[in-house]
Amino acid sequence: GCDLLAQERAKTTFSVNDLSVYLYGEEHLDRQQKFLELIENEPAFDKSDRYFLGRTERFAAALKKDHALVKLSQEQKWTPEEFTQADLLIDTPGPFGLHRGMFMPTLASQGNEEQQEKFLKPALRYEIIGCYAQTELGHGSNVQGIETTATYIPETNEFEIHTPTLTACKWWIGGLGKAANHAVVMARLITAGKDHGPHAFVVPIRSMEDHTLLPGVMAGDIGPKFGYNTTDNGTIWFDHYRVPHISLLAKYSSVKPGSGEYVKPPNAKLSYGTMVLVRATLVGYARIALSKAATIAVRYSAVRQQFVDKDSPKKVNGKIIETPVLDYSMQQYRLFPIIAAAYACHFTSKEMMRLYYLNIKNMASGNFSLLADVHASSSGLKSLTTTIATASIEECRRACGGHGFSSFSGLPLMLQDYSPNVTWEGDNYMITQQTGRYLFKSFRELVAKRSSGKFSASSITNPTLAYLNTYLDNPNLKCPATTPAQFHNPEIQLAAYGHRAAHLVSEIVHALDVEKRSWNSMLVDIYNASVAHCELILVQNFILGIRGDMPQPEGISAPVLSPAAKEALTDLSDLFALHMIHKQPGQFLASGYVDAKQVSMMGKAIMDVMENKIRPNAIGFVDAFAHPDYYLNSALGRFDGKVYEAYTEMATREPINQTEVIEGYEKYIKPFTNPEGKKGKTIQARL
Amino acid sequence: GCDLLAQERAKTTFSVNDLSVYLYGEEHLDRQQKFLELIENEPAFDKSDRYFLGRTERFAAALKKDHALVKLSQEQKWTPEEFTQADLLIDTPGPFGLHRGMFMPTLASQGNEEQQEKFLKPALRYEIIGCYAQTELGHGSNVQGIETTATYIPETNEFEIHTPTLTACKWWIGGLGKAANHAVVMARLITAGKDHGPHAFVVPIRSMEDHTLLPGVMAGDIGPKFGYNTTDNGTIWFDHYRVPHISLLAKYSSVKPGSGEYVKPPNAKLSYGTMVLVRATLVGYARIALSKAATIAVRYSAVRQQFVDKDSPKKVNGKIIETPVLDYSMQQYRLFPIIAAAYACHFTSKEMMRLYYLNIKNMASGNFSLLADVHASSSGLKSLTTTIATASIEECRRACGGHGFSSFSGLPLMLQDYSPNVTWEGDNYMITQQTGRYLFKSFRELVAKRSSGKFSASSITNPTLAYLNTYLDNPNLKCPATTPAQFHNPEIQLAAYGHRAAHLVSEIVHALDVEKRSWNSMLVDIYNASVAHCELILVQNFILGIRGDMPQPEGISAPVLSPAAKEALTDLSDLFALHMIHKQPGQFLASGYVDAKQVSMMGKAIMDVMENKIRPNAIGFVDAFAHPDYYLNSALGRFDGKVYEAYTEMATREPINQTEVIEGYEKYIKPFTNPEGKKGKTIQARL
Ligand SMILES: Cc1cc2nc3c(=O)[nH]c(=O)nc-3n(C[C@H](O)[C@H](O)[C@H](O)COP(=O)(O)OP(=O)(O)OC[C@H]3O[C@@H](n4cnc5c(N)ncnc54)[C@H](O)[C@@H]3O)c2cc1C
Ligand SMILES: Cc1cc2nc3c(=O)[nH]c(=O)nc-3n(C[C@H](O)[C@H](O)[C@H](O)COP(=O)(O)OP(=O)(O)OC[C@H]3O[C@@H](n4cnc5c(N)ncnc54)[C@H](O)[C@@H]3O)c2cc1C
Repeated sequence: GCDLLAQERAKTTFSVNDLSVYLYGEEHLDRQQKFLELIENEPAFDKSDRYFLGRTERFAAALKKDHALVKLSQEQKWTPEEFTQADLLIDTPGPFGLHRGMFMPTLASQGNEEQQEKFLKPALRYEIIGCYAQTELGHGSNVQGIETTATYIPETNEFEIHTPTLTACKWWIGGLGKAANHAVVMARLITAGKDHGPHAFVVPIRSMEDHTLLPGVMAGDIGPKFGYNTTDNGTIWFDHYRVPHISLLAKYSSVKPGSGEYVKPPNAKLSYGTMVLVRATLVGYARIALSKAATIAVRYSAVRQQFVDKDSPKKVNGKIIETPVLDYSMQQYRLFPIIAAAYACHFTSKEMMRLYYLNIKNMASGNFSLLADVHASSSGLKSLTTTIATASIEECRRACGGHGFSSFSGLPLMLQDYSPNVTWEGDNYMITQQTGRYLFKSFRELVAKRSSGKFSASSITNPTLAYLNTYLDNPNLKCPATTPAQFHNPEIQLAAYGHRAAHLVSEIVHALDVEKRSWNSMLVDIYNASVAHCELILVQNFILGIRGDMPQPEGISAPVLSPAAKEALTDLSDLFALHMIHKQPGQFLASGYVDAKQVSMMGKAIMDVMENKIRPNAIGFVDAFAHPDYYLNSALGRFDGKVYEAYTEMATREPINQTEVIEGYEKYIKPFTNPEGKKGKTIQARL
Repeated sequence: GCDLLAQERAKTTFSVNDLSVYLYGEEHLDRQQKFLELIENEPAFDKSDRYFLGRTERFAAALKKDHALVKLSQEQKWTPEEFTQADLLIDTPGPFGLHRGMFMPTLASQGNEEQQEKFLKPALRYEIIGCYAQTELGHGSNVQGIETTATYIPETNEFEIHTPTLTACKWWIGGLGKAANHAVVMARLITAGKDHGPHAFVVPIRSMEDHTLLPGVMAGDIGPKFGYNTTDNGTIWFDHYRVPHISLLAKYSSVKPGSGEYVKPPNAKLSYGTMVLVRATLVGYARIALSKAATIAVRYSAVRQQFVDKDSPKKVNGKIIETPVLDYSMQQYRLFPIIAAAYACHFTSKEMMRLYYLNIKNMASGNFSLLADVHASSSGLKSLTTTIATASIEECRRACGGHGFSSFSGLPLMLQDYSPNVTWEGDNYMITQQTGRYLFKSFRELVAKRSSGKFSASSITNPTLAYLNTYLDNPNLKCPATTPAQFHNPEIQLAAYGHRAAHLVSEIVHALDVEKRSWNSMLVDIYNASVAHCELILVQNFILGIRGDMPQPEGISAPVLSPAAKEALTDLSDLFALHMIHKQPGQFLASGYVDAKQVSMMGKAIMDVMENKIRPNAIGFVDAFAHPDYYLNSALGRFDGKVYEAYTEMATREPINQTEVIEGYEKYIKPFTNPEGKKGKTIQARL
C-alpha cells in the first residue's frame, strides 16, 4: 500500500502544493490545518463510531456535535464562512444546519429592520433556533400550490396560521422534528378574503422555557431516510394558530395593521437572487463531493491489485506483481472523468459566485440585465452538477469492488447523505424547464433581431447569446479535425458544445413555434437542451480557468498556475470535454458538427491522454484536493495507503463481534444444530 | 389516491389477471396467496418496524426470521423452490441465505456420494449450517490469485488449511460472521510441494456443541455495509488448521490418500454449469427488482399531483385539478422503460433457464456445444440486467421526489440490499471480458469459414453467429424506415441491434488482430460489445415471448396470451427496443444502419406510444406483476393508493418521536436558548 503510493507520488509531474494553493489559496489551506488540529481529537467531533450507530444514536451524536461546534465558534469568533469550513470537515449534517443555511439567510434577506433586530440577532446567538418550512406533504415542486393559510385578523392585528388538510401539513423540514424552537413558515397570505399566495412568516413553535410544543402546533420527526439521518426532518400541523403582526417578513411585501391592506413587493424578481446563491453553492458542493469520492477511489485503485495483465505485466525489482486496477483502461475511463469533473465544477462554481455578487450589485442600482441569464444557468447547473456528482459517488463506490460496499470505505454514507441534492432546491428534472424557457426566449429574440437588420455581433454581451449567434451564422458548420491530436484544440471543443446546444435549442423552438407541439410533449428535449447548455458552461470555464483568463471578482487578482500544473490540468480539461462527447455522442452527431469517424478519433485521443498523461498524475490530482484523512473517514482512501490494516482494525469494532457467540444462538441456531445439547458433538462431526 | 387509481384501473385495455397468469402461471400465483396468508401475520415475519431498527437489531430479527421460516418449511414440507418463493415475500436476506444459496449447491455439484451423505444430508436438516468462503481480503475478481493454502499431509492423511498473510484472510463471506458452523473454503491445494490452484474444502468452523470458534480458526463479522446488513458477512483466519481427507470435495478432482497423488478433473468446463445457473437466476432477480421498483413509482406517480399543465389541464367533474406527475412526458420517459425492462428480463430469464437445463442435459451426454455460448451470454446478461436494475431502482426513487428519500417509500432499503448484485458473482465490468472473448472468437471463426468456401448459412445453429453472419453479408446495410410508424416493425428493431453489435465486434477484432492493440487498451469497447450483444438478446426474447414463439422447456406447453394483453405488451416491447436506441444512439449511428433523422423519428414513435398506448395501461402493467402490499412494504406503492394516510401513520412510530422533548435538550439546546432556566420566556418572545 504505502510503497505503491510513494511510487505514484514520485511520478507526479507538478507540485501538488502549488496546485492546491491555486485552487483554494494559502489562507484557506492554513485555516483547514488549524481547524483540523482543533477538531480532530475533540470527542464531540470523533468519527470512529460513526458507521456503527443506529439512527437514534446518530441523531443524538449530531446534536452534541452541533452544540459543541457552536460553542467553539463562539469562543473562536468564527465568521460564517469559517464555521462552514470547520463544519464541512466534520461532515455530519446536524439539527442546526437549516438554522444557518435557510432560517437566518431568509430573515436577513426578507426581514425588515425591526424583524432583524427581534429575530435575527438572537438567532445569531442561537437563542432562537429556526428552520425553513416550505414543503408540505402534498406540495414540494409546486410552491404556488401550498395549502397552509395565514389569515389576517384585523381585530387583534394577528395572523392565524392553519393546516386545512392532511396534505397541507409541513413535511421534510430540516431541524423542525426536534431541535428548532422557531420556523419560517411559508403560508398563503389571506387578507380581507383575498389570497395573495405564499409568504414567509416567522413563527415560534416550541416553548422557550422548556422546549415543549406550543399550544396549537403539533410537530415531530418524519422518520428514517436513505441518508441525512443526523438531521431531524420534521412535520408540523397548525390548528388555528395565532401569531402577531410582526411575524410576516416584511422587507418587500407587507400588510397594513388594522386595515389589512396588502402592499406588493416593488419587483417580483428580487427574491431570485437568493435562489441563485443557493444553486451556485450547490455547484461548489458538487465539486467537494466529486473530489472526495475520487480521492478515495483513485487512491484505493492504485493500491488494489488484481490479475496480472498478460500483455504488459507489471514488475517491481524484476518480479512480476499483480496489476494495480488503476492501470486497467476501463477503470481509468470510469474514474479519470470524475477527477476532471471535480476540477470543472471548481472553476464553474467560482464563476457562478462572481456572477452572483456582480448581479446583486447590479440589481441594487436597478440593473437587472444579468439576472435572467444567471438564474437560468444556475438552475441548469444545479441540476447537471448534482446529477453528475451523485452518479460519480456511486461509480467510485463500485470501482472499489466489494470493499466499496463496506461502510468503512466511506462511500455508502457519502452517497446517502449527498443524494438529496438531486431533489431539493428544485427537483433536477423539473428545474431544467426554467433553463429551457430562458434559452428559447433568447433564441427567439436573437432570430428576430437578426432578421430586423438592427443586429451587430458586437452588441452581444450576454454569454449565452454568443454561441446561439455563431450557430445561426452557419448551422451547417463542420468540425475540421482530421486527427485525434486536433481534438485537443479548445476552440474545436467549444465549437462542438456550442453547436450541439444551439442545434437542440433551435429544433425545440421549431417544434414549439412551428409544429405547435405542447410544452409537456417536449420535456425530454428541454432537459437535454439544459444539459447541453450547462455542459458548454462547464467546458468553457475549465478552459478559461486554466488559461488564467477567467474574470475575477473586483479587487481580487487572478491566482497564478505553475506551467507544469497548467500542462497537467490541460490534460484533464481535454478529457472532460472529449469524454462526454465520446460517451454520449448522439446529439453531437445529430447536430452535424462531428461525424462518427471523428467521435472514434476522440476515443483514441482520450484513451491516449488517460494512459500516458493522466495516469502518472492521478494521485497528484487527488492529493491536490487536500482532503485530510479525518475528513475522508475511509479505510480505502487513506493518504498512507495502509488500506487493509485500517479496514480490518475497523471491523474488530463491529458491535456484534463483541461476544464470540451471538445472542440468538440458543433460540435460533441450537434448536437445529444441537437440539439435545449433546457434548462433544464437534469432534465426531470432524472425523 | 383511491379514486385516481380506480380511474386508472378502469382504463386498462386488458385483463390484468390474464397477464399475471401468462407471466407466472396459476400455480405460482395460488401459492403466493397461500404463503402470504401463512406469513403476513406471523410476528417473526412482521415488517412494521423494519425501517426503524439499527444494524444489531436488524440482524437479530433476521436470525429469528430465518429460524422461523426453516421451521415453517419443515412443517409444510416445502421444496427448495417453494422456500425461495416464501422467502422472497419476506424480502430480508438472512444469515442462512448462503447456506441454501451456495453451500448446499456446492456440496451437491462438487461432493462425491460419501460427502453428500456426510455433509449434504445434515445440511438439508440445518444440523450443519454452512457458508461459501472464496473471496479474500486481497482477492475477489481474481479467484486464481487467492492465497489460502490447503496442504496435504500424507502422514495423517489430512489437509492443513492456512492463512499465510493479512490479505489471505477470507472476507465478505455471507453467514460466516456469526451463524455458520461449517464453510466451503476455496484454498490452493498443495500436494508434494506442487500447487494445483484453488479447490473447495468443507470445513467445520464452530463447535457443534456450543457454537464457539474451533481452535485454529478466528472469525467474525466484517461490519456495517451499504445494504445487506441483515446478513453477517464475515471474515475467517486459519492457523495451520487440520481437516480430514474427506474435506476436499472430490466429485471431479481428488487426492489419493497416502500417496497424495493428484487426480485432475475430467473436463475443466464442468464447473461452468453452476455459474450459468447463478447468473441466469440473477437475471430473474433483476426482473423482480425492476418490477417491484416500478410498481411503487408508477402507482405513486398516478396519485402524486403537482402543477396544473396549462396546455391541457386535467379535469374531474368539470373542475381543474393538478396533474398527476405520471402525465408529464419526462416522468413517462423515465419510468415506462423500466416497466418494459422488467418484462424484457422476464422473458430472457425464462429463456436462460431453459438453455441452462438443456445444456446440463447435453453435457451429461458429452455434448458441450451450447456451453460456451450460454456461458458468454449469461455473463454479459448478468452484468447488463443488474446494472439496469440498480439504476432503475434509483431512478424510481428519484421519480417519487422528496418522498422517495423516505425509508417508508421502500425504495432506499431496496436499493441498498440490491446493490451488491453489480459486484458479486463477477464484477459487472470485469465479467464482460468473458462475453467479449467468446464473441471475438466466434467472429474470427465465422470469417475463416466464410473465406474457406466451406460455409453455408444453414449450418448456423448457434444463435450468436446468425447476426454476425448477416452483418458480414452486408456491412453497409441501411435501415429502410422512413416514418416513425415503421420502427414498430420488430424485424427493423432486431436488424438495428444485430448490426450495431456485429459492427462493434468487427471493429474490435480489427483493432486487436490488425492494429495489434492490447487487450487492456480495448476494455471500454469490449464492455460496449458485451452490452450490445446482450441488449440484442433482451430485445429478441421480448419479441419472441409475446409472439408465443419462444422455445419451451421439454414437456411444457407454451402459455397463451390474450389478444388484448398481446397488443399491450407489444407497445412495451417497441418502447424497450426504441428507447435504448433513442437514449444512446451513438453506436447505432456509428454502425451506419440508422441515421440521425431516423433516431429522431424513433423519438417521435416512442413519445407517441408512451402517451397514447402505454399511459392508459401503466397501472395495469404494474398490477400484473402481482406484488402484494406486504411484499412492497411501501407507503407510496400501496395498491389502494392511500399514500398520505399510510405515510403519516408510519412517521408517528419513529423512535425519536416517543418523547415530546428530545433527550439532548437539557445538555445541548437549553444552554443556548434558556441558559438561566427562565420561566415564561416564550410568551415574551411571541409578543
Ligand atoms: C433530505 C431532504 C431535506 C429537505 N429539507 C427541506 C427543508 O428543510 N425545508 C423545506 O421546505 N423542504 C425541504 N425538503 C423538500 C424538498 O424541497 C422537496 O422534496 C423538493 O422540492 C421536491 O419536491 P417534491 O418532493 O414535491 O417532488 P415532486 O414534485 O412531487 O416530484 C415527484 C416527481 O414529479 C416530477 N415532476 C414534478 N413536477 C413536474 C413538472 N412540472 N414536470 C415534469 N415533472 C415534474 C419530478 O421530477 C419527480 O420525478 C427536503 C427534502 C429532502 C429529501
Ligand atoms: C454484499 C456482498 C456479499 C458477498 N458475499 C460473498 C460470499 O458469500 N462469499 C464469497 O466468497 N464472496 C462474497 N462476496 C465477494 C464478491 O464476490 C467480490 O467482492 C466480487 O467478486 C468482486 O471482487 P473484488 O471485491 O475483489 O473486486 P476487485 O476485483 O478488487 O474490483 C475493484 C475494481 O477493479 C476492477 N477490475 C478488477 N479486475 C479487473 C480487470 N481484469 N480488468 C478491468 N478492471 C478490473 C473492477 O471492475 C473494480 O472496478 C460478497 C461481496 C459483497 C459486496
